[in-house]
Amino acid sequence: MNPKRCAACKYLRRRCPKDCIFSPYFPPSDPDKFACIRRIYGAGNVSKMLQQLPVQTRAEAVESLSFEARCRIEDPVYGCVGIISLLQTQIQKTQTLLAKTQAEIAVCSNQT
Amino acid sequence: MNPKRCAACKYLRRRCPKDCIFSPYFPPSDPDKFACIRRIYGAGNVSKMLQQLPVQTRAEAVESLSFEARCRIEDPVYGCVGIISLLQTQIQKTQTLLAKTQAEIAVCSNQT
Repeated sequence: MNPKRCAACKYLRRRCPKDCIFSPYFPPSDPDKFACIRRIYGAGNVSKMLQQLPVQTRAEAVESLSFEARCRIEDPVYGCVGIISLLQTQIQKTQTLLAKTQAEIAVCSNQT
Repeated sequence: MNPKRCAACKYLRRRCPKDCIFSPYFPPSDPDKFACIRRIYGAGNVSKMLQQLPVQTRAEAVESLSFEARCRIEDPVYGCVGIISLLQTQIQKTQTLLAKTQAEIAVCSNQT
């Protein structure tokens, strides 16, 4: 057992190679991060997706994939698309309030 | 060859069983829908996710998974999390404009 194995290799019960595709993004201190992403996408798919990306973008890709995976585990029907719907509703409400406020200004300007 | 196979079974080159978990959501007329979802999540993961959901929620789950998969293919680094960031920026801008407009009303009211 190598105590320095990354969380992914530990989870997959394998030796962590020097050029491990997972190790820069899955430290052994956060085993849950890999468990979530693996549960939704599968380890092979995540590895494939990372390999297709330039190295400097992989950390951000892992963060967004982790976020989506956690959302899908919390809300298996809507995942993070549920958040998009909520934000769109919030935008509509704010825009309605803005239009109302601008109409109030127009009334107010006419009175002066 | 069964011309009535669903898009998933056609893609997976298998017989489409009567109780196929994919067939209600992947009609043969839209092969791209299954291809996208399979590319990101893998057929086995999608099947597992659907099996864990009550039947009446599966159609919505397939739609949100398809949406996330298409976003990930279009934007492999940020996926639909990129849309969430855009919407949050839009909310901030609208809220700033609202605050400014409300401040204008306050000035205007003080003048009358």
